[in-house]
Amino acid sequence: MRFCSNLVSLSSERSQKVIVIGKPDDQHGWKAHGPTVTSVNPSSNKPIATVVEASVEDYEEALKACDAAKKEWMQMTAPKRGEIVRQIGDVLRANLNALGRLVSLEMGKILPEGIGEVQEFIDMCDFAVGLSRQINGSIIPSERPNHMMLECWNPLGIVGVISAFNFPCAVLGWNACVALVCGNCVVWKGAPSTPLVTVAITKLIAQVLEKNGLRGAIFTGLCGGANIGEKISHDRRIHLVSFTGSTKVGQLVQAAVNARFGKCLLELSGNNAIVVMDDADLSLVVRSVLFASVGTAGQRCTTCRRLFLHENIYKETVDRLLKAYSQVKAGDPLVEGTLLGPLHTTTGVKVYQEGIEKIKKQNGVILTGGKVIEREGNYVEPTIVEISNDAPIVQEELFCPILYVFQFKTFEEAVEMNNSVPQGLSSSIFTKNPELIFRWTGPLGSDCGIVNVNIPTNGAEIGGAFGGEKATGGGREAGSDSWKQYMRRSTCTINYGHTLPLAQGINFGSEN
Amino acid sequence: MRFCSNLVSLSSERSQKVIVIGKPDDQHGWKAHGPTVTSVNPSSNKPIATVVEASVEDYEEALKACDAAKKEWMQMTAPKRGEIVRQIGDVLRANLNALGRLVSLEMGKILPEGIGEVQEFIDMCDFAVGLSRQINGSIIPSERPNHMMLECWNPLGIVGVISAFNFPCAVLGWNACVALVCGNCVVWKGAPSTPLVTVAITKLIAQVLEKNGLRGAIFTGLCGGANIGEKISHDRRIHLVSFTGSTKVGQLVQAAVNARFGKCLLELSGNNAIVVMDDADLSLVVRSVLFASVGTAGQRCTTCRRLFLHENIYKETVDRLLKAYSQVKAGDPLVEGTLLGPLHTTTGVKVYQEGIEKIKKQNGVILTGGKVIEREGNYVEPTIVEISNDAPIVQEELFCPILYVFQFKTFEEAVEMNNSVPQGLSSSIFTKNPELIFRWTGPLGSDCGIVNVNIPTNGAEIGGAFGGEKATGGGREAGSDSWKQYMRRSTCTINYGHTLPLAQGINFGSEN
Amino acid sequence: MRFCSNLVSLSSERSQKVIVIGKPDDQHGWKAHGPTVTSVNPSSNKPIATVVEASVEDYEEALKACDAAKKEWMQMTAPKRGEIVRQIGDVLRANLNALGRLVSLEMGKILPEGIGEVQEFIDMCDFAVGLSRQINGSIIPSERPNHMMLECWNPLGIVGVISAFNFPCAVLGWNACVALVCGNCVVWKGAPSTPLVTVAITKLIAQVLEKNGLRGAIFTGLCGGANIGEKISHDRRIHLVSFTGSTKVGQLVQAAVNARFGKCLLELSGNNAIVVMDDADLSLVVRSVLFASVGTAGQRCTTCRRLFLHENIYKETVDRLLKAYSQVKAGDPLVEGTLLGPLHTTTGVKVYQEGIEKIKKQNGVILTGGKVIEREGNYVEPTIVEISNDAPIVQEELFCPILYVFQFKTFEEAVEMNNSVPQGLSSSIFTKNPELIFRWTGPLGSDCGIVNVNIPTNGAEIGGAFGGEKATGGGREAGSDSWKQYMRRSTCTINYGHTLPLAQGINFGSEN
Amino acid sequence: MRFCSNLVSLSSERSQKVIVIGKPDDQHGWKAHGPTVTSVNPSSNKPIATVVEASVEDYEEALKACDAAKKEWMQMTAPKRGEIVRQIGDVLRANLNALGRLVSLEMGKILPEGIGEVQEFIDMCDFAVGLSRQINGSIIPSERPNHMMLECWNPLGIVGVISAFNFPCAVLGWNACVALVCGNCVVWKGAPSTPLVTVAITKLIAQVLEKNGLRGAIFTGLCGGANIGEKISHDRRIHLVSFTGSTKVGQLVQAAVNARFGKCLLELSGNNAIVVMDDADLSLVVRSVLFASVGTAGQRCTTCRRLFLHENIYKETVDRLLKAYSQVKAGDPLVEGTLLGPLHTTTGVKVYQEGIEKIKKQNGVILTGGKVIEREGNYVEPTIVEISNDAPIVQEELFCPILYVFQFKTFEEAVEMNNSVPQGLSSSIFTKNPELIFRWTGPLGSDCGIVNVNIPTNGAEIGGAFGGEKATGGGREAGSDSWKQYMRRSTCTINYGHTLPLAQGINFGSEN
Repeated sequence: MRFCSNLVSLSSERSQKVIVIGKPDDQHGWKAHGPTVTSVNPSSNKPIATVVEASVEDYEEALKACDAAKKEWMQMTAPKRGEIVRQIGDVLRANLNALGRLVSLEMGKILPEGIGEVQEFIDMCDFAVGLSRQINGSIIPSERPNHMMLECWNPLGIVGVISAFNFPCAVLGWNACVALVCGNCVVWKGAPSTPLVTVAITKLIAQVLEKNGLRGAIFTGLCGGANIGEKISHDRRIHLVSFTGSTKVGQLVQAAVNARFGKCLLELSGNNAIVVMDDADLSLVVRSVLFASVGTAGQRCTTCRRLFLHENIYKETVDRLLKAYSQVKAGDPLVEGTLLGPLHTTTGVKVYQEGIEKIKKQNGVILTGGKVIEREGNYVEPTIVEISNDAPIVQEELFCPILYVFQFKTFEEAVEMNNSVPQGLSSSIFTKNPELIFRWTGPLGSDCGIVNVNIPTNGAEIGGAFGGEKATGGGREAGSDSWKQYMRRSTCTINYGHTLPLAQGINFGSEN
Repeated sequence: MRFCSNLVSLSSERSQKVIVIGKPDDQHGWKAHGPTVTSVNPSSNKPIATVVEASVEDYEEALKACDAAKKEWMQMTAPKRGEIVRQIGDVLRANLNALGRLVSLEMGKILPEGIGEVQEFIDMCDFAVGLSRQINGSIIPSERPNHMMLECWNPLGIVGVISAFNFPCAVLGWNACVALVCGNCVVWKGAPSTPLVTVAITKLIAQVLEKNGLRGAIFTGLCGGANIGEKISHDRRIHLVSFTGSTKVGQLVQAAVNARFGKCLLELSGNNAIVVMDDADLSLVVRSVLFASVGTAGQRCTTCRRLFLHENIYKETVDRLLKAYSQVKAGDPLVEGTLLGPLHTTTGVKVYQEGIEKIKKQNGVILTGGKVIEREGNYVEPTIVEISNDAPIVQEELFCPILYVFQFKTFEEAVEMNNSVPQGLSSSIFTKNPELIFRWTGPLGSDCGIVNVNIPTNGAEIGGAFGGEKATGGGREAGSDSWKQYMRRSTCTINYGHTLPLAQGINFGSEN
Repeated sequence: MRFCSNLVSLSSERSQKVIVIGKPDDQHGWKAHGPTVTSVNPSSNKPIATVVEASVEDYEEALKACDAAKKEWMQMTAPKRGEIVRQIGDVLRANLNALGRLVSLEMGKILPEGIGEVQEFIDMCDFAVGLSRQINGSIIPSERPNHMMLECWNPLGIVGVISAFNFPCAVLGWNACVALVCGNCVVWKGAPSTPLVTVAITKLIAQVLEKNGLRGAIFTGLCGGANIGEKISHDRRIHLVSFTGSTKVGQLVQAAVNARFGKCLLELSGNNAIVVMDDADLSLVVRSVLFASVGTAGQRCTTCRRLFLHENIYKETVDRLLKAYSQVKAGDPLVEGTLLGPLHTTTGVKVYQEGIEKIKKQNGVILTGGKVIEREGNYVEPTIVEISNDAPIVQEELFCPILYVFQFKTFEEAVEMNNSVPQGLSSSIFTKNPELIFRWTGPLGSDCGIVNVNIPTNGAEIGGAFGGEKATGGGREAGSDSWKQYMRRSTCTINYGHTLPLAQGINFGSEN
Repeated sequence: MRFCSNLVSLSSERSQKVIVIGKPDDQHGWKAHGPTVTSVNPSSNKPIATVVEASVEDYEEALKACDAAKKEWMQMTAPKRGEIVRQIGDVLRANLNALGRLVSLEMGKILPEGIGEVQEFIDMCDFAVGLSRQINGSIIPSERPNHMMLECWNPLGIVGVISAFNFPCAVLGWNACVALVCGNCVVWKGAPSTPLVTVAITKLIAQVLEKNGLRGAIFTGLCGGANIGEKISHDRRIHLVSFTGSTKVGQLVQAAVNARFGKCLLELSGNNAIVVMDDADLSLVVRSVLFASVGTAGQRCTTCRRLFLHENIYKETVDRLLKAYSQVKAGDPLVEGTLLGPLHTTTGVKVYQEGIEKIKKQNGVILTGGKVIEREGNYVEPTIVEISNDAPIVQEELFCPILYVFQFKTFEEAVEMNNSVPQGLSSSIFTKNPELIFRWTGPLGSDCGIVNVNIPTNGAEIGGAFGGEKATGGGREAGSDSWKQYMRRSTCTINYGHTLPLAQGINFGSEN
């Protein structure tokens, strides 16, 4: 049983080209009884489809099914679970283009990024298959004779994933692939404004489970809003909640989950900077800043929002950026050649406009952009602003393509400014100097979770651990040993002898 | 500068034999201006010494010094920091017996346990020295040509340690050794009722730092109460707070630390069970239960509080336990042969008495014990109680030597009862059946952080990770990869080529 | 360019059903000019096909192409190489049944084992894909300030694989998947008597390389005999030779490779034992011994050849084994229900006959079997022999289904007998006693590379490391960190500071 | 019982100051009956002492004792073994200066290097203590339900160490610390020309074993020559032979050990190069080349023997080197300020002289040095030679302070020349260019085991793995996971269920 909402209708011709997955009413168990939500195309603000969300009763039913399914899934061996995830990867691969188009259509990002996001999910599947034979525990030498000390890793049970609109697909991929291989059932609530992606992905995964004779509730997709998110946060049956979103909401989730002794994995706000030293390759810099600041219309958590330029190359870099910005082609994200798609919602446009007002009040100087684009859809101009690092707005994450530029004299000064915001997700330096490279990645360098050199702040690979420090929440997803967060660690000591030697050589009464 | 409180006076002759460390007034920087607290011998309730605690101003001065010292310590290489920790181990080794006696005197645990606790600190030092060359980052294969992907580990900065009275020495050892080697300064607040141990340990570590020409503030010891603890929780300069104590207080600490985007490492309440199958070696069982339930007068977080006995061996085991309990020698913890020392405080005795009352009201049957021992000091009888698993009191951690016994028929039933409390620290099974051993340590077995077989719930080795799940807080200290909690992980990608290939094969504009 | 021999003709109708891969003459580069070899069906000794082997000139041409291809492959990033291996897995998956039938047809093993072998290759591909993002190097803390110490892993260059007739497919899979992902080109010489499998696998891999626009020489398959093997052993361009075969030949290979400073990975003879304690589950024992001793007609390197039975269950176990042996169905390996296929060659039959003679001379008593089966093909009776552990023949690996049974009284005695042969590949104990389980796997237990409990000696999973000690050669293939053998490790220390501090605090002249 | 030779007499007053360890006849078991060897001071060629070496009968007696001791040591838990190694470190620390002086006196290296070598042994002890709780095995996810797959590491038994004169102390430290912690007994043969260091170290370790009530034979030191080395190579009781010395002898050892199925760890000849790009910090270069080429009088395996200079900085670098060489102070290694001590033996001087002759014949031009120094002892001039890279002598390791300088134009050319010798131990580049740094450490960079940047070829830290490729033998000692070579790996699969599922989904007969 899967409680993902049904597609009720598809109103746009456009969408007919992209949504090819699933037959809406062919399966017992596809149901929802909550409010109806309309999926809107951000490049036109026209509706694509209406979707029925999960009601609170649907949620309860779903969780019961999930809770009932977990024993089966936990006891399946990890390599067998890996085989299921491999098949999920294959079904995504078979639908790569259609899904990529759907992501672009519904979220608004340009097609190469839409496809890239699905590819990231596929990469995660492939990675997780290998992982399924490598989520190793340890045998640790015991100080006591005839004792085996083992560090065992067991599944948590149920992992809740609450993802955001800007990566409606990849963030689920990071979490679900690892969570599933580790033996957890997954309950996913996608963003309320990207229900079609939620439905599409859920249906594809459901196919795989069904084909293998497994309960659909092992992976449960839900369309829904804050009320469903709140249910997940407070639900004791959900052992880990992986939340992607703003710092503000993340802290509420964390408080709710902690209060019930659950675990949290938080991917919250970023406010990312690029530092450019005067020996940098400025061509690389310009391309990188463009991708990092304008890409996804500034709606990545890893979007570059602050640019620190060494005084020697300040003017030249700004000039080259202005030129590059002037050539950015805004338009329909599905059309080849478009670099700038719309903001995801009209609210996003409002945030942009209010941000520009604040910037002006705080003595920011707009070097380019600053205006809403007069056309259908949520388009705004990519914007570059000269502003003081002391302006309060620099401490905030505005989720739109506004870039602040600053001048600095020394590496130390640049690092200090990089570290001077509450958030700690991503950061980059451009330099050819090995000393600065390793000071940047060292104890007194960038304080972020992602610390790049000569590449933008965004565009992470799945092999590494993704996530950030401070107000970004401290979670790590995707590669490295992120899988440990999806498992319960136990230190197991097995005495297979006949006596009871105590650690630290303690003698407690006589042995007899 | 170190802000550990001075010893003001020593009133007991007893203590003169044990405190041989430090000359109280020989060092600029040993000072405190807060309230005076009296250290009391729990086996007599007579004062040992009075100590001046840190005032809030002292705390501020200390933190400033610590914050100023951290750059120096963070930049020292890890193997050099390891050498300092090695010397700390050596100075503790040279004072092993004196310190062990001091722990026994002030905390009340029997001497072998007092010495064992210091030995555990020493073991941690030795372990951490090796660790100082093994806190390895990773080089992860990048999918992009001419890119190095590194996972780097850097110090957090300052680690706050708030420890409890029951392990006034070892818990600091678990934290400080790893934190220091990882490049962090340490701010330690010991329990308000064990200030002499706090002073003694701080002075020894100060000696080592001084001898090496390092700032004393790298390790800052503080005597103080809840107000100092609260300062630590809210202090943004302290990146990680490692807290050992009750679930209730732990949750407050966690909320405070999370609110300021800090990290927490929580070691909270345990409510640990031993399961005995009918093929168990009952001699091993009886010795283990005795150590686990009566040892440290029931004041370990890993104390066994719940005993699940297979119906076939229920009667025999209870009988043998009653016999063993009847032979437990209560008395002065410093006297050889004593197995049961006093509770640490008169409050502990009150908790015991109220617990016994509640037990009776909830239809518990006292098989042995149940009374305060009529003598000087905080002595209570080790107690065995037959009670229903549904009695509410079974869900609580009473920090005294009360053991509940239960009968069960099947392994599954025993596991379910083991897992039916909010806490998830430690658990043991006694059996000779490999199938049960591995089901016990497997996905549907014990849900605790420590999952033992044929040994008691207590007495962990430092090589493994120590800590528990659920209301126990989820932290892991000492061995395994616990060190990762004391460091900041960064995923660093270095482009050393001339082009900008993007992950997931994304194409963002043309390359030129 | 690939130098695998062409299929020249297919003479058996049987084979037409199984060989569906490749068009023999559609590709420039498929060529061979050496002697012609005939592939023979071991269940009938009728020819299946004739194949032209590689000449020495072909070998030279092949190696030149391979050497020229290696730079390209080494510089491709590991995750991209992983994608190629994923595609190899997919093409094998698409041909699973056909390939499985071919393995059965040409090698003689029963179909479930033929398919299982191909499945093992596929599993290795899936595993290696994940591995391609996890062949991690390390960042090791340096004792010198401003120094990065890295442990880097780079490809070796070319890996030579010489495999044996008994696993014509899986052994290549173990080596090639890992070698390729690690960045090495592969030169493979299959067994001279299984050329069709060699051709089939090579062609499938060639397809994948071609489809991806990569040079075919990245994977080079060769049909050939000892002369080609010798070329590989002595070729300085081949950095690692992975050899599977007899101890005798393996030592020659090793000497040749060492003389030219190459690396060896040896999987040599096994002489594997099962120990049965008197608490064992005898049903499990009988099934396991049957699979381990009769499976693959005793031609696995992990075949059980020695059975140590505790005196208390000796008679019962032998009786049950005799009954089980009497029900073994010999016959065409492609027919469902067959458990015993033919020996691979007439030479194998001769070895069996001579072995039986020696056994008799050394006072062995044949309990069942001992005779060649009178029918077409190389069939021999599965044989159980009672013999003294001191008989010299017990020290040898006879590659046929002869099982020696022995009695023992104590665990220690059984372990000693287990360890008393030159070989050290696989071993199993059957017991329910945890103490014996962990003594068996401990320092004074079995001295083999594979140490099982309650499963047979054969049937390894790919997630673990496969290989053995002593005369078995010490190599480890497939999972765990076996990949390290396919890479060159370098310890890299990068000084990014301005001074030259020396390790161990050495002072060499003044710093100026 | 320990079979290290006795000190028979001390003839030099000098030595009386340095040898303070041991009373020569106070211990039963210190004995030797072989030939007498005279230890000679290389800076004067005067005898220091005569020592009786082990006879072949002594060797046999020693090995029997060692073999008898191994069960005890193997069964001791690793952390307890770590405690013994910690004590060895402490006793070395207490004798640091005396031992350092002894190394200088007998080997001839300058005192800071003599002390540094002992410090390296001490560092290894500290490291190995931590390691004793971290030589972890793995729990690998099994694909079969109710199966535990473990990778266990057990001691090998006895490790033989054959070390060379140039590091009479540190090389033993690398091997012995790890071997002991891993549970092996050690049989050590020091160089025949440094018997006093062998005696001193053996006696100190013996003290520790004795104090702990352990058999002395756990660590067995032997003075002896090639005949004892040969015994070790052929002795089946010695599971691993760790040999340090020339490639020529190493290959003989390897052949002998392989023939008996033993394991080898080889640290053979180096022929190490420094590459200097034209952006290098030349001050750092000059200091580094001086230390790498003149240090230890060119008698390190990591000595720099080849210097590749970019044409742009060729002249300046050579000039600065010539100036630096002219200031090198040759003299008594125990005198402060000496940078160049004597060669170890008169044979070394002869090798130098013959080398110079060959160089001249091969058209080498001597820029400085080239002569034996006219004074007491084995002193030769540190020498710089301009020669063609094609000269045959460039392929050889001359163990003396001769440095060849070459010019190059491109990085690729320099790497090719670096890799063009049979040996593959150490290599360095000096550059500030990150691209070159990572190409140098990458797949097409240096092919050595040690690949440095902006530091010399010598002076490794213990935390990394030490050793080299190709003719250098491929072994790795000291840190990283070198410990794995000192242990036996076993893949253990424990079936704790009641059925027999097979890997790869194979079905072998029916389950009943």
